[in-house]
Amino acid sequence: MKKAVFFDMNETLLNLSLLEKQFDKHFEDKYALKYWFTKLLHSSTVMGIMGVYKDFGELAAVALEQLFYENELALSQETKNEILGAFKKLPAYDDVRPALELLRANDIRVVALSNSSLEMIKEQLSNASIMDLFDSYYSVDDVSKYKPFEDIYLSVAQQENLTLEDIFMVATHDWDLFGAKKAGLSTAYISRKREIYHPFYTPANFTATDMTDLMRQIFNFKS
Amino acid sequence: MKKAVFFDMNETLLNLSLLEKQFDKHFEDKYALKYWFTKLLHSSTVMGIMGVYKDFGELAAVALEQLFYENELALSQETKNEILGAFKKLPAYDDVRPALELLRANDIRVVALSNSSLEMIKEQLSNASIMDLFDSYYSVDDVSKYKPFEDIYLSVAQQENLTLEDIFMVATHDWDLFGAKKAGLSTAYISRKREIYHPFYTPANFTATDMTDLMRQIFNFKS
Repeated sequence: MKKAVFFDMNETLLNLSLLEKQFDKHFEDKYALKYWFTKLLHSSTVMGIMGVYKDFGELAAVALEQLFYENELALSQETKNEILGAFKKLPAYDDVRPALELLRANDIRVVALSNSSLEMIKEQLSNASIMDLFDSYYSVDDVSKYKPFEDIYLSVAQQENLTLEDIFMVATHDWDLFGAKKAGLSTAYISRKREIYHPFYTPANFTATDMTDLMRQIFNFKS
Repeated sequence: MKKAVFFDMNETLLNLSLLEKQFDKHFEDKYALKYWFTKLLHSSTVMGIMGVYKDFGELAAVALEQLFYENELALSQETKNEILGAFKKLPAYDDVRPALELLRANDIRVVALSNSSLEMIKEQLSNASIMDLFDSYYSVDDVSKYKPFEDIYLSVAQQENLTLEDIFMVATHDWDLFGAKKAGLSTAYISRKREIYHPFYTPANFTATDMTDLMRQIFNFKS
């Protein structure tokens, strides 16, 4: 059977550094960006629990408005566009291209799977110049339920005609891997920053700090 | 039929200021506390989605360890105890006692309902000197599912032998009220800081910045 790797995108493949620069313009506090992103994630899980759905980009915009308001900062349409625009133009980490080329050379299917809309995914992959490396990409829009609800992992597996044991989910977010694991996939954690993997979440099957190393661990490629 | 008010505790009745002082000892960033609390909340929703459960205090400790580790700070057992200990000793807001006394004088049932353990709730209410104002209190431990999953709101309604339309959930967290509303309760938002109520969450039926005002809005007490 054909094997496949499902990749999360933000922070996993794409470097948030551009976004940091945007936040640094408005906040001296280095936790402002982390707070915003965690707030965004929390709202996505709350929406999922309540059984409602909105485009992730809309949630990101709301979290941004909340952050600025709490900090008594005005958020002009221009600044909003600038920050959310930077989100669309994140560069890929250096280790992404060689790792994905290795997969393709070994006939392993390369799939992107994101909380963002299809349009956003397309823009992000194009802007990061890695679109050519993907066989396909999917948005949670398809199932109206964000990761880590199991819906999207299962739906993509089915649409790609794959058996769960042939799929490896790669992410730098422990909660994403927890969801994928619950859905029946194998999981691989790529460490992108100094952090503790949540001890109450199911551990990943593979762990590395370099994407090619991670792929070699999974597939035991020669050389 | 008897009417009742369900109160969330942290930030709603209890002032997080003591906790701020603890965080200020270790972090210059004012968002460190907000980031920690949001991270904690996110992990609680993830656990709920995955169908697993741990004491909220354990989740709080993990989020604290993660925060310190990310910031390359050592977290001694002493510091951990100090910070989590402060969580147990939060003072009540000044408007809490008069508002709750008004409810009791009008024969309305006063109930606390928290993500924390029963033991933690008991300590917090005692330390804040408001235990005498409560008819009863409940922990999500009962249902092994955090707020805003509907389980706890429904379970307490049943245990208290109340009909849903006679219950008003009071909280300063929009996601808590979203959950209560979904479960069929009426909701009242007490604003405790400068923030935007999430535009995608069901709005509260009542809103105020003072607890007694909020109670008067709900019940139309003659002053």
